[in-house]
Amino acid sequence: MSAPALAASRHRVVVVGGGFGGLFAARRLKRAPVEVTLVDRSANHVFQPMLYQCATGIVPEATIAPPLRGIFRRHRHVSVLLAEVTGFDLEGRTVRARSPAGGELVLPFDSLIVAAGMQTSYFGHDEFAAYAPGLKTIDDARTVGQRVFGAFEVAEASHDPEERRAWLTFAIVGAGPSGVELAGQIRQAARQTLRREYRHIDPTECRVLLFDGGKEPLATFGDHLSGRAAQTLESMGVELRMGSIATALDGRGLDVRSGDGTVTRYEARTIVWTAGVAASPLGRMLAAATGVSTDRAGRVEVLPDCTLPGRPEVFVIGDMMSLDGLPGVAEVAMQSGMHAARTIRRRLAGRETGRFRYVDMGSMAFVGKRRAVVDFRGLKLSGFFGWLMWLAVHLTFLTGFSNRLAALLSWSLALTGSRRGRIFRTSDLERPPEPVTTRRTRSV
Amino acid sequence: MSAPALAASRHRVVVVGGGFGGLFAARRLKRAPVEVTLVDRSANHVFQPMLYQCATGIVPEATIAPPLRGIFRRHRHVSVLLAEVTGFDLEGRTVRARSPAGGELVLPFDSLIVAAGMQTSYFGHDEFAAYAPGLKTIDDARTVGQRVFGAFEVAEASHDPEERRAWLTFAIVGAGPSGVELAGQIRQAARQTLRREYRHIDPTECRVLLFDGGKEPLATFGDHLSGRAAQTLESMGVELRMGSIATALDGRGLDVRSGDGTVTRYEARTIVWTAGVAASPLGRMLAAATGVSTDRAGRVEVLPDCTLPGRPEVFVIGDMMSLDGLPGVAEVAMQSGMHAARTIRRRLAGRETGRFRYVDMGSMAFVGKRRAVVDFRGLKLSGFFGWLMWLAVHLTFLTGFSNRLAALLSWSLALTGSRRGRIFRTSDLERPPEPVTTRRTRSV
Repeated sequence: MSAPALAASRHRVVVVGGGFGGLFAARRLKRAPVEVTLVDRSANHVFQPMLYQCATGIVPEATIAPPLRGIFRRHRHVSVLLAEVTGFDLEGRTVRARSPAGGELVLPFDSLIVAAGMQTSYFGHDEFAAYAPGLKTIDDARTVGQRVFGAFEVAEASHDPEERRAWLTFAIVGAGPSGVELAGQIRQAARQTLRREYRHIDPTECRVLLFDGGKEPLATFGDHLSGRAAQTLESMGVELRMGSIATALDGRGLDVRSGDGTVTRYEARTIVWTAGVAASPLGRMLAAATGVSTDRAGRVEVLPDCTLPGRPEVFVIGDMMSLDGLPGVAEVAMQSGMHAARTIRRRLAGRETGRFRYVDMGSMAFVGKRRAVVDFRGLKLSGFFGWLMWLAVHLTFLTGFSNRLAALLSWSLALTGSRRGRIFRTSDLERPPEPVTTRRTRSV
Repeated sequence: MSAPALAASRHRVVVVGGGFGGLFAARRLKRAPVEVTLVDRSANHVFQPMLYQCATGIVPEATIAPPLRGIFRRHRHVSVLLAEVTGFDLEGRTVRARSPAGGELVLPFDSLIVAAGMQTSYFGHDEFAAYAPGLKTIDDARTVGQRVFGAFEVAEASHDPEERRAWLTFAIVGAGPSGVELAGQIRQAARQTLRREYRHIDPTECRVLLFDGGKEPLATFGDHLSGRAAQTLESMGVELRMGSIATALDGRGLDVRSGDGTVTRYEARTIVWTAGVAASPLGRMLAAATGVSTDRAGRVEVLPDCTLPGRPEVFVIGDMMSLDGLPGVAEVAMQSGMHAARTIRRRLAGRETGRFRYVDMGSMAFVGKRRAVVDFRGLKLSGFFGWLMWLAVHLTFLTGFSNRLAALLSWSLALTGSRRGRIFRTSDLERPPEPVTTRRTRSV
């Protein structure tokens, strides 16, 4: 691409997705001679690592979901557009999107950055969705919170001991960071805030079951920290069921197959699915248009500079890209977003560009109140110091000062006292009806 | 009733509804020899006077909707039950309710306090509900917020000037406190926070139309303050359309008949209905069972001590009761709740009871940022001092310290800066489809 020619009129960059990848790409184009259109179907940037805190009412939704417009208020080069991207014309260099009012929008681009992230995947069992919400969006967090806290309400109103026990049993499928954090948080809430609030049940008797096909929770953290996480979870009363695959589930419980092939039925009225994610369907669309492959999770195999073969102006970044086995974490999304922005800036300045180099900043998960496991650039921490680090990093990443302040206040209240902000009505507690007999017999 | 006999075993009080009336009744029974079951279909007490602030994102939902269980954590005499009351057997002294898990619950009582409040009424036009949400519940506030802020998004994405204008036109039907406060708040948000956030529209060009059949906004506040409110609203750019009745509405706008009989069509994609409320249907149920009348709004005509004729153990309080023309405001609900509790306490102690005496504490409404009109025990304030009073009274009433603190912080941020916490996605902006031609021709 000959950069000086482009610089004459404003270079148009379309960024698809307002997650970490899109956000950092758009911000880093600040001083470049470009105009950016950031398109997302959500009006908010969602700080996904804290969704489970939103579900359990520790922080209000608004704190972890600042409006994209607010974030870019002072970035006059960025125009935010609320619309759902429906397709691409890479030849004609346009993105097609459905306007919220219904019409079709056509967005021309000179450079395109696709960062539409991941969504919950039920591995071909989409019918599970009705019974076991995921934890990827604000709506998910709301649903999970209503179901978890609602289950204690139903148990309190019930006189049948068996029903009561089933409502006080929580099954979490998937022991990655979201599953681990949520499991710890439910036990914590039961022991600390809920304990004194009920008259007919003892919330501390609730069972939290954590299922995963792997050997240990937080498998990607390595043996040392996984072991610490397992210890911490067990000390909190979470029941680990590793080497277990959910084979069928319905509104009343789930069937789980363990390593030796036996299938066990668990009566659990509340199930949360954090077992699988798949790239946005936009990934397959792009792959098909350029003849590249996608991996099993639907991620697009990009060139080392995060672009598509033969389309140097099209970047696929963050969770949607398959590159060098990089994990789908916020850090990779941010850094690849910054890389795409830098590449565009350098091209426009006629300078050399290079491949994406990821700097591993480590990973972390919050297990319980004042307990976390952290792997920060080789430094492995768990317990209280892990938690301090977790807090510092999360506060640093939260976009916007007022949110940071509000989050800090919310946390202080949650950690010192017992604030709980779940909002629901009886109608929110309804479970979809399920044909129990047919589901019970299926085995996958 | 012979009180000493009852005091031997615990006297059972069932309170229906966790609004201001039910809350104050249950709290005031603290030192009495009773056990209280407070039943509500919502897990939260909703601080209704601030719903419009929740809709416009000034305070988070959790702040104005503390969980009932949290409020009564230390009141061991109160057991909170999440269930929907479906009927009464006054003869057998039981309340029937639907458990959130589906079964029926039967709650025996010695005294019953019914405080189920009001709900939005469309005066027989329930089909309006799909196009014009009310503002009585947290769900309403969420819907209103998504529609109001979503409308600016659609306008930003639109290229058709006429469509754009229609999306930037907001119609609020009903100029009581909710309507007035919401109207002021939309103009305020447009001028202060939204102004800098859009690239293709000028949010300050938005029209906010306030319709009411009466002569002035806040008619119940009296001429002096109504006049001040009208002035303030107009100075903020709200267009008052007094003496106007909405005769038909759909997803694209509404038909309004003015005093001289002419019908005008307004293209307004966002309509909010704050024009009417009616008592909970439980009111008519109770009235039918005891042969008393209800007024036009479905309120139950109670005896001067808030009980039903021939049923001294059954109280109907708050917004649901019709007594001496008392208005449906929080103060009346609280005081009648305290009266019911006092009456039960005195009966159990074998002491004399009397009629309900209401002490008027005044009324107030928040018109704009740092502007309010207040009528506090004869003291009439408007503008900044009115606002200070409004703030003090609202903070005093907010239940629970952490909520009060959080509310104060939220307000500080909102008043000094420009926090806006609405959360929505493209799918939240869909309007129900409407048969425009048939609706346009209707005239009621």
